[in-house]
Amino acid sequence: MVTRFDTISFLTDYGTTDEFVGVVKAVIRDLAPHVTVVDLTHGIPPFDVQAGALALARCIAYVPAGVVLAVIDPGVGTTRRAVAIEVAGGAGVRVGPDNGLLAPAVAVAGGAERAVELTNPEYQLATPGATFAGRDVFAPAAAHLCNGVPLTELGPEIDPGLLLPATVPLPRTEPAEDDGREVVFAQVLWVDRYGNCQLNVGPDDLPEDWGPHVQLRYHTHTTFADPSGMQTRSAIRATSFADLGGGTVGLVLDSYGMLAVCLDQRSAAEELGLTAGDQVILSALDAPPAPTTPVTLAPRPQ
Amino acid sequence: MVTRFDTISFLTDYGTTDEFVGVVKAVIRDLAPHVTVVDLTHGIPPFDVQAGALALARCIAYVPAGVVLAVIDPGVGTTRRAVAIEVAGGAGVRVGPDNGLLAPAVAVAGGAERAVELTNPEYQLATPGATFAGRDVFAPAAAHLCNGVPLTELGPEIDPGLLLPATVPLPRTEPAEDDGREVVFAQVLWVDRYGNCQLNVGPDDLPEDWGPHVQLRYHTHTTFADPSGMQTRSAIRATSFADLGGGTVGLVLDSYGMLAVCLDQRSAAEELGLTAGDQVILSALDAPPAPTTPVTLAPRPQ
Amino acid sequence: MVTRFDTISFLTDYGTTDEFVGVVKAVIRDLAPHVTVVDLTHGIPPFDVQAGALALARCIAYVPAGVVLAVIDPGVGTTRRAVAIEVAGGAGVRVGPDNGLLAPAVAVAGGAERAVELTNPEYQLATPGATFAGRDVFAPAAAHLCNGVPLTELGPEIDPGLLLPATVPLPRTEPAEDDGREVVFAQVLWVDRYGNCQLNVGPDDLPEDWGPHVQLRYHTHTTFADPSGMQTRSAIRATSFADLGGGTVGLVLDSYGMLAVCLDQRSAAEELGLTAGDQVILSALDAPPAPTTPVTLAPRPQ
Repeated sequence: MVTRFDTISFLTDYGTTDEFVGVVKAVIRDLAPHVTVVDLTHGIPPFDVQAGALALARCIAYVPAGVVLAVIDPGVGTTRRAVAIEVAGGAGVRVGPDNGLLAPAVAVAGGAERAVELTNPEYQLATPGATFAGRDVFAPAAAHLCNGVPLTELGPEIDPGLLLPATVPLPRTEPAEDDGREVVFAQVLWVDRYGNCQLNVGPDDLPEDWGPHVQLRYHTHTTFADPSGMQTRSAIRATSFADLGGGTVGLVLDSYGMLAVCLDQRSAAEELGLTAGDQVILSALDAPPAPTTPVTLAPRPQ
Repeated sequence: MVTRFDTISFLTDYGTTDEFVGVVKAVIRDLAPHVTVVDLTHGIPPFDVQAGALALARCIAYVPAGVVLAVIDPGVGTTRRAVAIEVAGGAGVRVGPDNGLLAPAVAVAGGAERAVELTNPEYQLATPGATFAGRDVFAPAAAHLCNGVPLTELGPEIDPGLLLPATVPLPRTEPAEDDGREVVFAQVLWVDRYGNCQLNVGPDDLPEDWGPHVQLRYHTHTTFADPSGMQTRSAIRATSFADLGGGTVGLVLDSYGMLAVCLDQRSAAEELGLTAGDQVILSALDAPPAPTTPVTLAPRPQ
Repeated sequence: MVTRFDTISFLTDYGTTDEFVGVVKAVIRDLAPHVTVVDLTHGIPPFDVQAGALALARCIAYVPAGVVLAVIDPGVGTTRRAVAIEVAGGAGVRVGPDNGLLAPAVAVAGGAERAVELTNPEYQLATPGATFAGRDVFAPAAAHLCNGVPLTELGPEIDPGLLLPATVPLPRTEPAEDDGREVVFAQVLWVDRYGNCQLNVGPDDLPEDWGPHVQLRYHTHTTFADPSGMQTRSAIRATSFADLGGGTVGLVLDSYGMLAVCLDQRSAAEELGLTAGDQVILSALDAPPAPTTPVTLAPRPQ
């Protein structure tokens, strides 16, 4: 048996108050003592598979070759499949539940090449109860892969085309009802510790003729400023937080290449009342007028 | 001097906001650079020795051979003893305060074989103040043990029979006052991140003739539903969270072999108003009637 | 190229909910797989450079030889300099932003010997946006230094004398307005998880003739007890928390050699209403009377 990998990159919704993360790492240390575990994060909100898939997508370009172990698993103990997915000609394996969590990390690496369902009890821990697959199924699989156990030893091959995809919301561009100028319907993907609100919009998703000033409209969770329940703020496009003066809302190109609603050294999420999942409607404050369509008035019936 | 251990499994109530955990690991890295530290958890509530002992008990079967370092230490700087306890023929050493924290982890490993009090200043750090024994006493002891320093170098041997035990609450089964059927007085041992409430009751602690439906009665922290201040909920025994429909309370066999009060993808603790330490009274909803004791009425005195 | 260091001690305000810490460690693992990262803490409040500098100062005597990587970086993406600073004859390098964060850790090690600005793009990651220098600039610099890349390869040398200093508040001793006895104006430097309030005062900063009883006066955040808005509590000097009876406020010599306002197994910060940055005025409750200056009354003009 040859040693195959020496790094397991690890992401969950376990939190760090309980000992879940520690027990998984104890199991790995016991089975594959040569492995270093890199904790990506364990702070994904409980059960939030989409937030976990997005976090993994943000990490994945920086993750070393080896095994990625990701567990957000509301269906634990049911018929949802536990899987290991080989990518990049065997340079990496993704281990976790087949619920969409791994999908972006698989796609970024070029797609699933082979996949197995983790059913071989020889590579699992006997368990008093079926609620902690991270400890009993996924960690042992990850450790044994690092020890050189072939993928297909862990269980039967499954069709990689049938793995569950992730649902990543895409922005939508439409002409506005009133003046026909383009507006972009975006969504907050992620609010980070500093209160920056990453949108599902990159610079190329905004119309080319937009200038630096962008209007944001959104329903806020904290106050409703007008009868329609919409808040309106103007934002300026920027490349650093400090480019924003005190209180100026920025649309900052973030470190993942997306646009984020930000304030300098203050929480935009708190001040604007935004949370992950919220819709934000972007329009140009300094856009050229919409092309005028010539309108021919028909003679009025008399 | 031979290297003896290469893993220290580490549990505290230090939290991760302050640098306490980091400093302890820096000390270990400095003294025994070959050691890998596995953080079990540092999220035990401050000063809660019992919660720490229970968490360590849940982990201990999965912890690799080597040193376990556990520090929840309200008596730091007093006459409470700092100890190292050898278990399992020398395959493991438990290091920490002698206040019951280590007791379950010692018991699970077959009991204390040898123990010393950590008093030898040669294996401690000089300290400006006596409030951080994790850094100054326990971490150096753990690191030196990994470097092969014999246990008895760290201080004088003490009688393992005099180490403080842990206080783990046991369930109690009694006939109910009204109908004589058995009821089980349980306690919430632990509320995890997902709001699952582990009881001090395993499946074998429930009477054999109970069916799948169980009544729970408890004082809640959030509301009082009736004048007696007791809440009543019915629960169903289950093996996975997803077996529970929306809103159904489950008694789920958890990954440690205990029964836990659970909801599917929601916090049972929050919804039912339960916290660690609360009493929960279990009774069968579909139990057979209590055996009827023939009652012979004595003739009424006239 | 020779391996130069094998430990990176790592401190940030990134928190552990997002994946920032994980991504930085993934980058280090990828570039310098032989390195062990010791997380000092990532729980510094967002943007709080002074709190980070103080935490690093508390750690630094215990940190192993090698690289210290510290990132609290409100000026990221601006002209603030990213730097690496060599200390202790090359036994250590401090990597981070030049905003005072590193200053105490540099001073404790004997001062900056050489410093460079991290501008060489060969030792940085290409980035879609300039907001995550921890990942793109600082982590690669730390990893490459561990791989033996010479300091001066990372960018041009800068004058160590021009590095930004930290601002650490000093206590002040003055005679009281009323009786001329000495009072010490102190500040809360740090409130830890247990609610202990470390002051910027060591035992030698209190007048020698003070006894064990000390009066504390401070503005509280929770209540105002008298019209002047000052709270008054008496405290006793102690060497362990347990020396304090229930409810007795202690001035405990903490593990860093400073005096901390403490309660036994309760949060002094919560009970007294103190937070980091608050002023606390100390005076002796059992001090000898102020030396009486002989006063000669001039004959009254008639």
